[in-house]
This record gives sequence, C-alpha cells and structure tokens, in this order.
Amino acid sequence: MALIVQKYGGTSVGDPDRIGNVARRALAAQKAGHQVVVVVSAMSGETNRLLKLVNARTERPNEREQDVVVATGEQVTIGLTAIAIGAQGGQARSFMGHQCRIVTDSTFSKARIKHIDSGGILEALADGQIAVIAGFQGVDEQGNITTLGRGGSDTTAVAIAAALKADACEIYTDVDGVYTTDPNVCPAARKLDRVSYEEMLELASLGAKVLQIRSVEIAMKYQVPLWVKSSFTDDPGTLVCQEDKAMEDILVSGVALDRNEAKVSIRDVPDAPGMAAKIFGALDERAISVDLIVQNPAVKGKTDLTFTVARADLLKTQDVVKGVVKTIKAGAIEVDDDVAKVSIVGVGMRTHSGVAARMFQTLSGEGINILAISTSEIRVSCLIPTRYAELAVRALHSAFGLDAKVAPARASTGSKARKTSKA
Amino acid sequence: MALIVQKYGGTSVGDPDRIGNVARRALAAQKAGHQVVVVVSAMSGETNRLLKLVNARTERPNEREQDVVVATGEQVTIGLTAIAIGAQGGQARSFMGHQCRIVTDSTFSKARIKHIDSGGILEALADGQIAVIAGFQGVDEQGNITTLGRGGSDTTAVAIAAALKADACEIYTDVDGVYTTDPNVCPAARKLDRVSYEEMLELASLGAKVLQIRSVEIAMKYQVPLWVKSSFTDDPGTLVCQEDKAMEDILVSGVALDRNEAKVSIRDVPDAPGMAAKIFGALDERAISVDLIVQNPAVKGKTDLTFTVARADLLKTQDVVKGVVKTIKAGAIEVDDDVAKVSIVGVGMRTHSGVAARMFQTLSGEGINILAISTSEIRVSCLIPTRYAELAVRALHSAFGLDAKVAPARASTGSKARKTSKA
Repeated sequence: MALIVQKYGGTSVGDPDRIGNVARRALAAQKAGHQVVVVVSAMSGETNRLLKLVNARTERPNEREQDVVVATGEQVTIGLTAIAIGAQGGQARSFMGHQCRIVTDSTFSKARIKHIDSGGILEALADGQIAVIAGFQGVDEQGNITTLGRGGSDTTAVAIAAALKADACEIYTDVDGVYTTDPNVCPAARKLDRVSYEEMLELASLGAKVLQIRSVEIAMKYQVPLWVKSSFTDDPGTLVCQEDKAMEDILVSGVALDRNEAKVSIRDVPDAPGMAAKIFGALDERAISVDLIVQNPAVKGKTDLTFTVARADLLKTQDVVKGVVKTIKAGAIEVDDDVAKVSIVGVGMRTHSGVAARMFQTLSGEGINILAISTSEIRVSCLIPTRYAELAVRALHSAFGLDAKVAPARASTGSKARKTSKA
Repeated sequence: MALIVQKYGGTSVGDPDRIGNVARRALAAQKAGHQVVVVVSAMSGETNRLLKLVNARTERPNEREQDVVVATGEQVTIGLTAIAIGAQGGQARSFMGHQCRIVTDSTFSKARIKHIDSGGILEALADGQIAVIAGFQGVDEQGNITTLGRGGSDTTAVAIAAALKADACEIYTDVDGVYTTDPNVCPAARKLDRVSYEEMLELASLGAKVLQIRSVEIAMKYQVPLWVKSSFTDDPGTLVCQEDKAMEDILVSGVALDRNEAKVSIRDVPDAPGMAAKIFGALDERAISVDLIVQNPAVKGKTDLTFTVARADLLKTQDVVKGVVKTIKAGAIEVDDDVAKVSIVGVGMRTHSGVAARMFQTLSGEGINILAISTSEIRVSCLIPTRYAELAVRALHSAFGLDAKVAPARASTGSKARKTSKA
C-alpha cells in the first residue's frame, strides 16, 4: 500500500463532469490499494473571475481581503470533488488551508508555507477516506487566510506529499508530460519518460509552464517523486526524480525558449571598480531581476555593459538606469525587446565538455547572431533576435539528437496545447 | 457613541457598485460617531449558482461538503466589502464564521448558533475598524464549516448584535420597511413605523418574507432593537421592538396572506378517545407540521376531521393518512390545495374583544366562506378558497382601519417588490 498525492489543475476540474472524472481516478487509485490525497485548483476561469470582482472598483485592493475572496475558488472545488466521490460510492473529506492546517507566513497573495499539521489528513486516511485538499491557500499564525501565488496548487501538493512522506506526487494537467521542447514550435518534440529535479528547475524557470518552480524546489529538497500526467489519458507521463547514472549519458534533455526578456545596453561605462555594483544595486533596490550580463573588454577606459530583464520590467528598468547613468557619467542607453532566449538543459553537461561549443556552432550554422550568453552547470542560454527563435529551437533539438524517431505519441492523444491555466 | 450592526441582503450587495454603496453607508455611520459591524449575504444569485453546481451530478450531495461550497458566497462578499471600505479611505477587517467565531451545532445546512466568541470583533472595533462578517455561516466544535439555512444572514446579524450588546441591528433589504400587508395585493398598504417582536413573529411565520423568523426570536429573547430599512433610500424604515402601551391601542397591525397550505379532510372518524392522537402522531413521526385543525361535532358516533399542512408536504401527508385511516376504520380522505390562509395580527387583541367576530363578519359580508379557523393570543387566521384571497385581504385591511389616508410613501421610491432573495 502506497500513499499517493494527486493534484488536479483548473482545466481538470473545469466543470462537474470533469470533477466526476477526477473522483473516478482518485477512487481507482484507492481501489488499487493506495491511500489517496487529492489536491485541487479552482475551476478554470474562476480565479480570474474573482480577481475581476476584486479589482472592479479599485486598483489597489487590500491584499488580506483579496486573499479572502480568491481562496473561495479552491474551496468550491474541494466541496464539489468530495461530493462527487461520495456520489460514486466513496468516502471523502474536504480540507481548507486552515483545516489541514497549511501554515504560511503572512505575505498575502504570495505566502510561503512554513509547516503543515498533517494530523487531520492522516486521521481521514486511516478512516478509509480520500482527503481532498484546497490548493493555493493557507492560513497564517494569526488565523488569516493566505494564498501562495499563481500555480500555488502545485506547491501545496508537493508540500503535502513531503509532509506525509508520500510515495508519489502526481500532477495532473492537460498535457501528458514534460516534453523535450514546445511541440508547437518543434513538431519533432518528444515526451520525456524521466527528467531530473535540477533539469526540471531549469526548464521551469525558462518558461516551460508545466510545473510551478517552487513546487520543484520542494520536491527536490524532500526527494518527492513527482509525476506529470494528463487527466484526460492513461499515459504514464513524465517522472521528475533524483538524477541517476543513466541520465548523465544524455547530454541535453530539453531545449527551452523564453520570449519574455528584453535587452538593455549601456555604452561607455567608465572602467572603474564599483560601476556594475552601482547599476545592479539600483536595479535590485527596485526588485528588478537581471538575467544575462555581458561586459565587453574595456577600450580607452570605457566599456559597454549589456544585460537582460523581464520584458514587464523594462520601463521601470529604463527609469532606474537613466538615473545611474547620470551619476556614473556613462553614455547612451540602448534598449531592445525584440530578443528571445534559447537554452539547452541537461545534467549530462556536468560530465561532458564541448556542449556550449556545439550550441554556438549550430546557431552559427543557421546564420543566427548570438547577442549574449549565460551558463549554469547544467544549462547554456543564448540571447538571439526574436525572428530566429523557432529556427534556433528546431536546429538545437535536432543537433543534440532529441528529435523523435517516429511520430510522437502525443499526436494521437489530440492534446497539443502545452499551456495550463493554473492557480 | 453607539454600537450598530448593519446587515445587507443579496440584492444590496448584488454587484461591485452596490457593494460600494454599502461601504459608503457603513462609513457614514462610523463618521457619525458609531462603532459599526457589517454582516453581508452572498451576492444575489450566487447561492443558487453554487447549489446548482452541488446538485449537478447527484441528488443527495454530502451535506458537510455542500456547506463548504455554499459558504463561499458570503466569503466573497466580505472580502469585496472590506476592499470597498478600504478603497473609500476607511479601515475594515473581514471575518468568516470560523474566524469570529460563530460556533454552531453540527446540523449541516440548517445549523443553530450555540455561542459567539466576539473577542476578535471587539478588538477590530476598538482599533477603529469596521468589522465585516460573513452571514449565514458558522463553524462547529470540530472545525467543520456549517450554514444556517436560507435567510440565515438575518440570524447571524441579530445573534452578533445580541453577543455584542449592540444598540441597534439594522436589516437592509430592497423594501423600505414592514408593511400592513402585501402592497402588491392591497394598494392601500401602509409602512409601519413600529411593530412588536411578537407581531413580527406572527407576520414572519405567515409568509411576510422581510425577516427570517429565527432572527426575530433571537431579537426578542435578547431585546435587540431591530430596524428594517431599504439600502436604496434614506427612509427610517420600521422598528421591531418590545411592545408598549401605544401599540395596544391599535387593534390590528397587519393582514397576512399565505398561499402555501393545503387542506386535508377525513370523513367518518370514529368518535372515540385517541383518534386525533393517532393521526397527528403519525404525521409528526414523518416531520409533517400541521397548522389549522377543525373537528366537527360528532353525529351518530362519527366525526369529520379537517387540518392543513404545507402544500409541499401534501403527497407525504396523503401517504401517512391513508395508512392511519385503514387502522382506525375512518372514511374517505378529501384533499384541497386550492385554499389560502388570511390572518390578522395585533397585540391589541389581548386587551380588546370582538376582533375575531369582526373578521368573520367582514369575510361573510364579502360572501366568503370560511373553511377553517385558528387563533393565537394576537392572531386570527381563516382558511378560505384561493379565489377570494386578495378580496379578503383588502376587505380586512379596510375594515380594521389600516388603509393609508394618502398615497403610500413607498409609491414614490419606485420599490414595489416585497420579496427578497436571501441567504
């Protein structure tokens, strides 16, 4: 007998029929001899409907009260799911964040889980019940309702799995696993059977929206085996787990594309100590995250500095940089938001050399100019002009031997969309 | 400085603009120097939408889980109301039933309030905040969410007012007070300035749907002055309060009409001790409430027995009565659901005689046959054929001097509907 946590996203609980389907899956797992915990998101569209009400008459709603309103989405789903399980002859008990209890800090709308008092859940399981838990929400030490931020239901599921020392955490969504790259960009994309936590973290942060990044961090920290599966098929999905020897033999596991960055260049920065600290310190003060940074070799005591930020932060960034440029007496500021970041990810890079070189050669072979480069132990990212984005992904996918040999299984499931609406 | 509890029903919080209006009223009361507690219902239509989801795939949803779903309606409204108060420069804090805490028994979907731990509310008030409380919901000793049944928000408001020893409880609705009778039936209906708790109890139980009956019982028990007001006008409304000398001078305060009863007659019941006990005992076992009862004088050892039940219970009643009739060897069963109950209510009846006689004369003068009669200390009810219902109401309204001398104020407010959607 295993203890399994199943998490169902918004589209999987989008209407009463689909909730009936979730109940069937949970009951099937119980009948197979397992203890089952179900974590659910709000019905698709519901969180946005509630946020629209919250913002109807003010641009700055009280954040404590916003969480009170938005948390109702998941509350509705747990009740309906428990009712559906009951209607199918099973036994279920719903838990809100404050009933579980999932204790968080008091950062409304993006609270972090501090600890989980899992006694009530274990009691329900021992009683033969399926525990149905509201994702996305918690309660702070003072009893205020909190929410964990978009995609927070993944985090709830993995945190519950960690607290219960579950044998597996299954994330059900509307795609049937993690792919080597976006199938909409590259038809040769393959579903991965296994991927390591670290690779998944890089892929998640690079905009592959299958899992919330925080949930992967918690799964890695507590060694929770994480399955990404479709709630509409019986495909086994992708296992996200600890890296093993076999994984290291694969040089590159996936190719990621991120179109949400913008490039900022500052010309003629004085080549003196502390210049970069002044610029990036000022950006940090305004909570702007900087991604790639490239500094050219100095010529005549001046250098050019290029970096990327999230496109949404571009206006704020320009404001900050204008101020600093005046202070440090640098030159012109150039901005380019017509850029894309393409990345290759793989734990095999740790033990194999020449991966970055092969990436640059591949891009160069397609006539693609690289605007900036950054690397981690298991990732190489290149900033390129947007118009080459899809070409770059396909070329790299092929160059690193990721292309499917046969038509991908995904084509027969009829599920092509990779984006999930989550909360 | 007074402590005021204001309760707003579903139509008063039906959209963000109306919630803005509620915030304005609450802030105005606070600016006038009062401590203000606001109790709100779900936005109109919301409770029905949630019940539809609950019943989408099963006829017998788990009641605990139904309450989990349905309680979200009020949760949304408290958040939005607190946000609206904040947006208008005020300070507010929302409270769910489990945060207040409103502790109830565990009778899901019709729980009864056991006690209220008002510490959190008093703290918020002392802090200069407006406390915004979810109506209709509570929490049992085990931490399960409960709801109080339709119209339960009135009960929440009055119970909170009693617990806080509030100076007044104002029930805001879409009519501007309690009327002498239904203005849709009798254009001469007048708004009452004052009505006693006991009269209100009789009127509430007779289908005047302005207040939930349980809320009036609590108000009477704890002597909470209760105002019924419109949230759309500045009319002072109707005060429901302890009866005083002046009230006793008025013979009849209101005329009520109830179309939801059905008449059952059993012919040739043996005139022996215990027959009525057998019949009504059997009905009681099936939780069927009997209202009027008439037994004719016995002729040749047999009598006819007539009583009324709620129309919704008629089929169940026939089943029960058929069984009993066989056992006690009575005769035919006759059923008539084409009946209406018209009642006159007034504390003045206690000290004045001849009221019932005048009622019978008035009906007789209009050629209306009385099918059954029942009385209480402050009420006389007559069962009549449905087709005479409106005529009877108008005739009694006029006969007991209730007709407005001038056109009723209500006509100028444009609000004619008397029925409120409540939860």
